[in-house]
Amino acid sequence: MGSGSVLVWETLGTAILVLLGAGVVANTVLKDSLGNGGGWLLVNMGWGFAVFAGASLAAPSGAHLNPAVTLGLAVAGKVGWGLVPAYLAGQFVGAFLGAVLAWLAYKAQFDAHDEPANTRGIFCTAPTVPNVGWNLVTEVIGTFVLVIWILLSPGAKAAEDGVPQFGNSALGYAAVAFLVIGIGNSLGGPTGYAINPARDLGPRIAYAVLPIRGKADADWGYSWIPVAGPLTGGVLAALLYLALPV
Amino acid sequence: MGSGSVLVWETLGTAILVLLGAGVVANTVLKDSLGNGGGWLLVNMGWGFAVFAGASLAAPSGAHLNPAVTLGLAVAGKVGWGLVPAYLAGQFVGAFLGAVLAWLAYKAQFDAHDEPANTRGIFCTAPTVPNVGWNLVTEVIGTFVLVIWILLSPGAKAAEDGVPQFGNSALGYAAVAFLVIGIGNSLGGPTGYAINPARDLGPRIAYAVLPIRGKADADWGYSWIPVAGPLTGGVLAALLYLALPV
Amino acid sequence: MGSGSVLVWETLGTAILVLLGAGVVANTVLKDSLGNGGGWLLVNMGWGFAVFAGASLAAPSGAHLNPAVTLGLAVAGKVGWGLVPAYLAGQFVGAFLGAVLAWLAYKAQFDAHDEPANTRGIFCTAPTVPNVGWNLVTEVIGTFVLVIWILLSPGAKAAEDGVPQFGNSALGYAAVAFLVIGIGNSLGGPTGYAINPARDLGPRIAYAVLPIRGKADADWGYSWIPVAGPLTGGVLAALLYLALPV
Amino acid sequence: MGSGSVLVWETLGTAILVLLGAGVVANTVLKDSLGNGGGWLLVNMGWGFAVFAGASLAAPSGAHLNPAVTLGLAVAGKVGWGLVPAYLAGQFVGAFLGAVLAWLAYKAQFDAHDEPANTRGIFCTAPTVPNVGWNLVTEVIGTFVLVIWILLSPGAKAAEDGVPQFGNSALGYAAVAFLVIGIGNSLGGPTGYAINPARDLGPRIAYAVLPIRGKADADWGYSWIPVAGPLTGGVLAALLYLALPV
Repeated sequence: MGSGSVLVWETLGTAILVLLGAGVVANTVLKDSLGNGGGWLLVNMGWGFAVFAGASLAAPSGAHLNPAVTLGLAVAGKVGWGLVPAYLAGQFVGAFLGAVLAWLAYKAQFDAHDEPANTRGIFCTAPTVPNVGWNLVTEVIGTFVLVIWILLSPGAKAAEDGVPQFGNSALGYAAVAFLVIGIGNSLGGPTGYAINPARDLGPRIAYAVLPIRGKADADWGYSWIPVAGPLTGGVLAALLYLALPV
Repeated sequence: MGSGSVLVWETLGTAILVLLGAGVVANTVLKDSLGNGGGWLLVNMGWGFAVFAGASLAAPSGAHLNPAVTLGLAVAGKVGWGLVPAYLAGQFVGAFLGAVLAWLAYKAQFDAHDEPANTRGIFCTAPTVPNVGWNLVTEVIGTFVLVIWILLSPGAKAAEDGVPQFGNSALGYAAVAFLVIGIGNSLGGPTGYAINPARDLGPRIAYAVLPIRGKADADWGYSWIPVAGPLTGGVLAALLYLALPV
Repeated sequence: MGSGSVLVWETLGTAILVLLGAGVVANTVLKDSLGNGGGWLLVNMGWGFAVFAGASLAAPSGAHLNPAVTLGLAVAGKVGWGLVPAYLAGQFVGAFLGAVLAWLAYKAQFDAHDEPANTRGIFCTAPTVPNVGWNLVTEVIGTFVLVIWILLSPGAKAAEDGVPQFGNSALGYAAVAFLVIGIGNSLGGPTGYAINPARDLGPRIAYAVLPIRGKADADWGYSWIPVAGPLTGGVLAALLYLALPV
Repeated sequence: MGSGSVLVWETLGTAILVLLGAGVVANTVLKDSLGNGGGWLLVNMGWGFAVFAGASLAAPSGAHLNPAVTLGLAVAGKVGWGLVPAYLAGQFVGAFLGAVLAWLAYKAQFDAHDEPANTRGIFCTAPTVPNVGWNLVTEVIGTFVLVIWILLSPGAKAAEDGVPQFGNSALGYAAVAFLVIGIGNSLGGPTGYAINPARDLGPRIAYAVLPIRGKADADWGYSWIPVAGPLTGGVLAALLYLALPV
């Protein structure tokens, strides 16, 4: 598969991923949404099925949708480095577009929301206890679980020509959805589980540039952690993978 | 498959879809139901498994159950236009019948409900913030996600003779259920996610004609939006599908 | 398969079904349980996965676990009438044993419960609005959905020698679990969805005979409805199945 | 497969299992976690998908992850006794490591928690009503359901060379996840469902030795029950398996 096709599918898949992922948080946060106050399990199931929907659509490119996954697969030798720029470009562009679409889907609710400054959490993550070191550790661990699972799943082992079809072979991308719901349930408490640099930075940029009513700043001081942590976790998973007797 | 069989299976599948879908809302809304106050995730899982049940039964006709799906598949060249009237007829008739069955299943609870005017939401959708333009946008986006997913799923690609067997090949219609739970979780907040003209209009007509105790009006002023929005979203998904390098 | 094997597998499967099903209600109802007050979705997922566990174990006999299913399959010509007594015996015996096991698992919590009279709901169903006619209608509709789905699923169509392996072929008995969660979510509100004569009557007898602290009466006046309603629903589903152009 | 590989895969799988399992409880218990107060279904889905993640990774060794499973499989003749020490060693070491990782992932939240003595429940189980006999019964029954299901699942029957690939063949380890969610929903109320000696004892030791802020004692008086109960349940399941007409 060429860089052009990778770009198309990763953009589409990541846009749908972030549309549904930002959407479920909007549904929970915005006062005039039917899911207002819906709770943590609703949010996690929303992100899980967002991964399912986006990954199903991006199957032709292997559905990375996440720079930490792409980097981990490249380090593990599963994807050629020459395709990495196309994957990353599609992921960041798609994440930005998905955030814009989520804002449009909830436009009337954003306009009616009476605590507009708390809308940043719809777009990007934040720690409950700001602490550079431990926040990084949390993101590293969560992403490590994601990427080692992807590397060891049957589909990844059967990958050919640089485009692994991961996901459990029978469940398809629903397996990834279950894993992401699990990571969110279990490891999302401290930092909101970015575990994906594109999922966090793309919508953060969208939040900064969109004319959202009464919005807060984009918290750029924290923004590097959900990039550096996941990339580190992805590389660590790849290194473990290479050391295992697979 | 002939128009007669399409009519039978689409009627059966859509009736079960709406029976279970309206049923879960009745369970949440009606005071004397065991699920009263059960929350947004309960409603979404109810609609998701309603799709699973209805779609499983209507597998012989490809389980459209939704005029926006039928229209999108027709525009994409997956279904012959000659079968479209049978699909639509079955969907609207089935949705009406399903709403009647749901009312019968909860008849004693409807009769005991002490705020009868709020029962319309059991049958059809309404926006939290009425706004013609943005309500349409929300329904277009939600349906777009549904139809583009159906068009790109492996089953759809393998379709033959006008009757695509969509749904992920391994998960079957559970995949569609997961997607619909995802759309409800993430994009249902503003308008209650009709994403299906038959699912909204059929039960709305049932609400208007059934002798439901103390019922409100059927809100005909809003009724065209959950028809026009989903049909537009379905066509946009088909156009994107035709433009993609599939 | 002979009657002896049918009896063994149906007893085992129905015992596990009712152990987990009565267990989840005990968890929700009993004050000293960790799941106390857990809500309707917890109960429905509990029953759904109870079906999954019990049906997986009883796969050799086709995993009926429910007299309404056995009767519906017999009317539809999928199971020989000569095996019906063994199915029914296993189901009622298993349901009784499962209720005893659930009581043992929660024995310390039963003994510590300070509103002992409300424990009957752990064992058997009751309507929120007692009304013979409409309570029957609700049970008929819920069971109809269950049995028509089983009859039309791919596994049922491939059945041979009297032992249909129902359940969606790829998902196995998880498909039945999703369906039962759906029926509970959507149609369980009025009567608590027995949809299975053995599941209701077996534990009701257990409730009547076990030395449960401060128990209430077993509400024998209602006990025939969760038997007659499901059996009627199963037969109606079989008759529709025979009329469909399958 | 040799003991060395068994040790590697069981350690990895059990570490991820306990990382996610202890993680979801931490998310619910710790005041500064986003999932604080998330409820019993969140906890159960967390443990279920923790099993899914850990078992997927440990597929090469058959993914026991639990001494009660290993013992049950050995008694049933599915695993050679010579491999049992490697399985058990990996399980206890992995469980300890997973608990340490969960503590690191939530380190800032542990440090900020203002009721530090209630953190023991993140690591190990406790009964709501202490009673040696009935607490044992509950753990025996819960583990019995787990192990009989594993022994009778299609994958187990097809096992070869001492490494059964259990899990329903189509769903893979998601089937085990559904079962564990079911056991948690239904039988977890009295004792918190250890159903696995390693899952309880490994993290209990971690709790005793880690410098957790303001921690309580490790409740060693109860610690033998979640070891003896599950081992007994596993053996009883194996004995029933050997008696069944499989």
